[in-house]
Amino acid sequence: MNTLHVELGDRRYPLHIGPGLLGCPDLLRPYIASRQALVVSNTTVAPLYLEPVRAALADLRHEVVILPDGEQYKTLETLNTVFTALLEHRFGRDCTLIALGGGVIGDLAGFAAACYQRGVPFIQIPTTLLAQVDSSVGGKTAVNHPLGKNMIGAFYQPRGVLADTDTLNTLPDRELSAGLAEVIKYGLIRDRPFLEWLEANLEALLARDAAALSAAIERSCRNKAEVVAADERETGERALLNLGHTFGHAIETGVGYGEWLHGEAVAVGMVLAAELSARLGWLRDEQVERVRALLARARLPLAPPPTLSPDDFLRLMAVDKKVQNGRLRLILLRDLGQAVIAEQVDARRLRETLERSY
Amino acid sequence: MNTLHVELGDRRYPLHIGPGLLGCPDLLRPYIASRQALVVSNTTVAPLYLEPVRAALADLRHEVVILPDGEQYKTLETLNTVFTALLEHRFGRDCTLIALGGGVIGDLAGFAAACYQRGVPFIQIPTTLLAQVDSSVGGKTAVNHPLGKNMIGAFYQPRGVLADTDTLNTLPDRELSAGLAEVIKYGLIRDRPFLEWLEANLEALLARDAAALSAAIERSCRNKAEVVAADERETGERALLNLGHTFGHAIETGVGYGEWLHGEAVAVGMVLAAELSARLGWLRDEQVERVRALLARARLPLAPPPTLSPDDFLRLMAVDKKVQNGRLRLILLRDLGQAVIAEQVDARRLRETLERSY
Repeated sequence: MNTLHVELGDRRYPLHIGPGLLGCPDLLRPYIASRQALVVSNTTVAPLYLEPVRAALADLRHEVVILPDGEQYKTLETLNTVFTALLEHRFGRDCTLIALGGGVIGDLAGFAAACYQRGVPFIQIPTTLLAQVDSSVGGKTAVNHPLGKNMIGAFYQPRGVLADTDTLNTLPDRELSAGLAEVIKYGLIRDRPFLEWLEANLEALLARDAAALSAAIERSCRNKAEVVAADERETGERALLNLGHTFGHAIETGVGYGEWLHGEAVAVGMVLAAELSARLGWLRDEQVERVRALLARARLPLAPPPTLSPDDFLRLMAVDKKVQNGRLRLILLRDLGQAVIAEQVDARRLRETLERSY
Repeated sequence: MNTLHVELGDRRYPLHIGPGLLGCPDLLRPYIASRQALVVSNTTVAPLYLEPVRAALADLRHEVVILPDGEQYKTLETLNTVFTALLEHRFGRDCTLIALGGGVIGDLAGFAAACYQRGVPFIQIPTTLLAQVDSSVGGKTAVNHPLGKNMIGAFYQPRGVLADTDTLNTLPDRELSAGLAEVIKYGLIRDRPFLEWLEANLEALLARDAAALSAAIERSCRNKAEVVAADERETGERALLNLGHTFGHAIETGVGYGEWLHGEAVAVGMVLAAELSARLGWLRDEQVERVRALLARARLPLAPPPTLSPDDFLRLMAVDKKVQNGRLRLILLRDLGQAVIAEQVDARRLRETLERSY
């Protein structure tokens, strides 16, 4: 097991990464200060991993809420079922929420913890690659609104993150690929040596080689923890973590939540960002090709869904959180391994990029 | 006009208190950093005071959401209508929300601001006595759940508070009395000279004497600002502001939101707290009588609704936010002007107090 920390002063917390962590109750218990815990999981993950978590909580009063699986359930309505469970069990302000699942469960349970009685402690136990390398770290919690993804949420840090890499053994191939999109993102935005390592080791990752996966997760989390420690509330540098996300959120919202996986939409978004960067003269064509090739090897889509027109994209992107004073800000690439915040992106070049991307 | 400040470091903000403030656009504008503002108000307040607020925003892009009036609308569902309006108008992370109304509007719009895109600026323009002396100051925002009042919310501070005392001229008598309950609370918990001043000036307040009301509002806000600056997130002293509220929330939830006004329920709660304090030997009977007499002069109820039994009370109080590790904490009075947090209150004495209170 390796342990990193997100350095946020009195809200500093550890990320434990390694195999077999769910079998170590001593790892989970120190983060639960009170006598009450609510585990939030879903119908896919609970049958696989709820038992060891419950065993670790055996001497506490603990309850479980099992939600349906899928991005389409990351709603205010589902959130309310968590509040109802907490209140029906008469859980007080000193209870602890435990998110056991992928990004949807982590985002939703984290937001429930942020709001219940104006804030109760929570712990992330991510069981997908995407959640282990990205969504469980850094305190972004949210639910979706029909008009925009992650539009309702809070910055709210967990007490700790337990990423048991053994849980990836049961992950569907499609979910593994979606997680790799966020892994590749770290290489593209700020870690060129990692990008090169990924180019050399992608087949090992796809084959679920344990050492390769652990190395990729650790390096991703180290990158994320550094960025979050420097800019918790995304007033600057943290926005770079959104490479591909403004495009990606438009795809997810446009085709309907749950149709595309988040990582798949981000992959296409990163291709679009690279192509727009080339159009601005920042990337060479062969660099764009390198981005496309790596994502293709990771079995990720490279083109937007044909049902979403460039006009749809532009309309959906206009409500994204990266908009300021009505001007679209995008994360683009100055170079491989060097993302930048581009203010006032030229609308014509953006449209050209979208039109040629299908 | 008088200006106090809530001293919270880089989130320090002013409370402007006085007549005619809504007629001063220069007062509102400095708190709006961006070009977009959404005013949230209700069907009662908007016809009276929306125009001057809109006039102050004339050169900005501003939109308005008018909600139905009443505690029964302080729900996740109503909250979602605010998010929908923000998204339909494509408001970005740099928009400002303006709460124009009483405690329900302030709590709901403040929570909307806390959650929209993980937090946007907001301004409180309280138009009831209760909101001016209590709910608009200190950053407690929330909506209700059918199983408990204010159970879903956030600590989220406004950029500024504009309390125009002229708005109290249109306040119904019942609402004025409800506000006086929170005013009297400050005297009871930490400001005995103010309690004595209130005993001497209650008729002037009921007659809406402008100087008396301004003095009472300022003194109340000064008390609240001091407590909040010392303990923003209610880890200690701030809990004293909840005198009467655990009982009061049980009444509000038990009879159905919107039946009793919050201040009315708090008045009965303060009577119950005083009586329980006497039962514990902390207050003398004539001191309890003084509390009852002052609240009665303010035309507030002193007894719980007959439809709510002691068992109902105990059940409803068990989910209140003041519960820790299953033990009921109550705010009680060691003396007039000196509230304390009582841990592990004797259940028998609590029940006796409830049984004899009708």
